[in-house]
Order: sequence, then C-alpha cells, then structure tokens
Amino acid sequence: MKKVEAIIRPEKFQDLRQKLSAIGFDGLTVTEVAGTGKQKGKVGVYRSTAFEVTLLSKLKIELIVSEDRADEIVGHIMDACKTEQIGDGKIFISPVEQVIRIRTGESGTKAIY
Amino acid sequence: MKKVEAIIRPEKFQDLRQKLSAIGFDGLTVTEVAGTGKQKGKVGVYRSTAFEVTLLSKLKIELIVSEDRADEIVGHIMDACKTEQIGDGKIFISPVEQVIRIRTGESGTKAIY
Amino acid sequence: MKKVEAIIRPEKFQDLRQKLSAIGFDGLTVTEVAGTGKQKGKVGVYRSTAFEVTLLSKLKIELIVSEDRADEIVGHIMDACKTEQIGDGKIFISPVEQVIRIRTGESGTKAIY
Ligand SMILES: Nc1ncnc2c1ncn2[C@@H]1O[C@H](COP(=O)(O)OP(=O)(O)OP(=O)(O)O)[C@@H](O)[C@H]1O
Ligand SMILES: Nc1ncnc2c1ncn2[C@@H]1O[C@H](COP(=O)(O)OP(=O)(O)OP(=O)(O)O)[C@@H](O)[C@H]1O
Ligand SMILES: Nc1ncnc2c1ncn2[C@@H]1O[C@H](COP(=O)(O)OP(=O)(O)OP(=O)(O)O)[C@@H](O)[C@H]1O
Ligand SMILES: [Mg+2]
Ligand SMILES: [Mg+2]
Ligand SMILES: [Mg+2]
Repeated sequence: MKKVEAIIRPEKFQDLRQKLSAIGFDGLTVTEVAGTGKQKGKVGVYRSTAFEVTLLSKLKIELIVSEDRADEIVGHIMDACKTEQIGDGKIFISPVEQVIRIRTGESGTKAIY
Repeated sequence: MKKVEAIIRPEKFQDLRQKLSAIGFDGLTVTEVAGTGKQKGKVGVYRSTAFEVTLLSKLKIELIVSEDRADEIVGHIMDACKTEQIGDGKIFISPVEQVIRIRTGESGTKAIY
Repeated sequence: MKKVEAIIRPEKFQDLRQKLSAIGFDGLTVTEVAGTGKQKGKVGVYRSTAFEVTLLSKLKIELIVSEDRADEIVGHIMDACKTEQIGDGKIFISPVEQVIRIRTGESGTKAIY
C-alpha cells in the first residue's frame, strides 16, 4: 500500500475531491499547512505570527491507496491541480505497511476503501 | 522503527492519551485534520471556507515506536477509539528509518521514548 | 529520497529556515501540531478545547530531500533547534519512493528542488 501525499493550492481542492469521488476514492485526509518551494512566498499569510512573513498557505491531501492504483491517483491530482503557474505543488509517494479500520478491525487493502 | 498514525474522533483523544501514558508512551504528536472515509461528511465543519461543506473534523495522532511495540499500540488505539459506529477512523503503519532526539543527539530506539 | 520530519520549538523556525535557505533548501512544509514527549506538557495550550490541557504547541517541518543530503539537513536542524533544554524536539527520517512536481510533471530528484 502507498501513501500519496499532495501539497496543493487550496482553491484546487474541491475540484480534486470531486474527481476522486467520481472514481470511488472517498477516503482522504486534509491538513492546512504552509510552505515554500523554489520560489519563496511573497504574499504569504499563515496563522502563527512566528512565521507569517513568507510562507504560502497550502493544503496537504493524504490518500492511502493500494499499490496498483497509485499512478491513477497521481494522474487525477495532476489533472485537477495543474495550472502551469509556479506554485502548483508536489506529490510525494511513500510506503505504507498496514492499514486497519478501527470500527471493524479489518486490515490490509480491504481496510483502505 | 514504525510510525503508527491514527485518524480518530476528536472526543476519543483524552481517553487514548491516558491509556498510552499508563503504559509509558508519552511521545505523540497531534494534528487537527479534516477528512472523509467511505461515508462522506454530512455535518462536517472545518476552519477554511474552501472545504467547509462535507469534511469531518478528525485528529491525527502520530506515534513513533519501536517495531516490537507497534501491535500493542494498535491494540490500545482500538480499545480507546472504537465505538462500532461509522467514522471510528483508521490506523496506518509505515516505516521509520531513523529517530534523533535534538537535545542530546541520541538516535535509534533510545531516542524514541 | 527521504522525508526528514522535525518537531521543533516554534520560536526556532525562522532561524532554521534561514540556515536551510542559505544552503539552497527552500522546499519545506510546515504544520502546526501539538505534542508531548517524555516530559508532559504543563503549560500547554492548543486550539481545540478537547485536548487543551497538557499538550505543547510545536511546529512540524517536513523536508523531502535526496538521500545523500539527509545527514546534512539533520545537522542544520540540530544547529538551529538545539537549546539543550528539555523539549527541543525530535527528527524522524523515513523513505520516500517518488516525488512529482505538479506544474511540469518532472519526477525523482529533479522534482525535489
Ligand atoms: N522538497 C520539499 N519538501 C517538502 N515540501 C516541499 C518541498 N518542495 C515543495 N514543498 C511543498 O510544496 C509546496 C508547493 O511547492 P511548489 O509547487 O512551489 O514547488 P516548486 O519546486 O517551487 O515548483 P514550482 O516551480 O512549480 O513552483 C510548498 O509550498 C511546500 O509546502
Ligand atoms: N484511504 C484513506 N486515505 C487517507 N485518509 C483516510 C482514508 N480512509 C479514511 N481516512 C481518514 O480517516 C477518517 C475516518 O475514516 P472512516 O472511519 O470514516 O473510514 P471508513 O473507511 O469510512 O470506515 P467506517 O465505515 O467505519 O466509517 C477520514 O475522515 C479520513 O480523514
Ligand atoms: N515517540 C514520539 N512519537 C511521535 N511524536 C513524538 C515522539 N516523541 C516526541 N514527539 C514529538 O516531539 C515533540 C518534542 O518532544 P521532546 O523534545 O519533548 O522529546 P523528549 O523525548 O521528551 O526529549 P527531551 O527529553 O529533550 O524533552 C513532542 O511534543 C511531540 O510532538
Ligand atoms: Mg514554487
Ligand atoms: Mg466512514
Ligand atoms: Mg520532552
């Protein structure tokens, strides 16, 4: 299993979510984050005064998916989030060894969806 | 070493924390997240207007633990967080290669606890 | 590729960011988190009343880096964030299998920086 983690423009989230939901991916986790890439934030705002100056607000979207569907998910993230302007974001893929649904105790791929 | 990441109902956190502390696990990190699983959020609320409509507030709890204690931790999360109602959450386990305590420079399992 | 994840004192972030930027690392993601280590929070405050009592506010800094630069990054985090007082934080290193820049579709190490 894989974690597909995307740091995206907040305004792209609704579109991404609809695309994923349309193909049956409803499990995802969203975190409000702040960041910089190659271009440093210029008009960045964020909650804490400690680092308000030059970070940009982004959303981190995490999807745990079965290995065979990771590429498909990446494709949908690209479709929904690419504007070709700097700051479109990044996708990171990492290994996940186990998934458990707390309600039922199910584990493995049947616990993902 | 492993990362045990649980997405739980916020109201279960205090109970989980007490259970873990009682067995000597005091190191954990909490993040406010929003998400959906199989059932989409209906009464979801979250800070950003951008995705206020249908996401549910959850807490992400991250625990870095030694490999031999991961199952035990999962058991305690199940105990504390299972209501058997939809939306109890999920547990994800992934590999961690190195841990360093910044204060001392210690690394490996002795840096975990 | 590696994820270098550091849980640090919020007041150390600006210094860390400057050190990293000076050596060409501008890609990072910041999340406001709350946590406890061996010493439990005493004067902790955090947004949600649900767990306001004993957690301490921290920042989670995530840097995706190429394998050969992980140690260097760890060194800079230690330099910027170590006070030798309890609560300086931790660094976790974990594997990342793929990185994609959404704007261009580039992948691998050339998508990191
Ligand atoms: N190496 C990295 N490690 C961790 N987070 C990163 C990294 N690079 C980028 N990010 C996160 O992704 C967000 C968006 O990055 P961004 O799209 O600006 O990347 P970029 O490499 O500068 O690409 P572009 O040239 O298209 O702007 C950043 O605000 C940050 O949160
Ligand atoms: N595949 C996934 N990837 C990432 N996050 C997920 C995934 N599935 C669930 N989550 C996160 O876990 C939270 C709780 O999920 P939830 O318990 O509703 O899962 P479920 O599969 O619908 O199980 P149940 O039938 O018990 O509701 C979601 O709000 C989301 O934050
Ligand atoms: N095992 C762990 N798993 C997940 N998060 C952890 C773990 N240990 C510490 N943390 C996170 O790191 C933050 C800082 O930890 P802290 O520096 O107090 O660690 P410590 O082991 O108590 O070291 P010290 O003795 O220097 O205080 C915590 O608030 C928590 O967010
Ligand atoms: Mg950029
Ligand atoms: Mg559900
Ligand atoms: Mg401590």
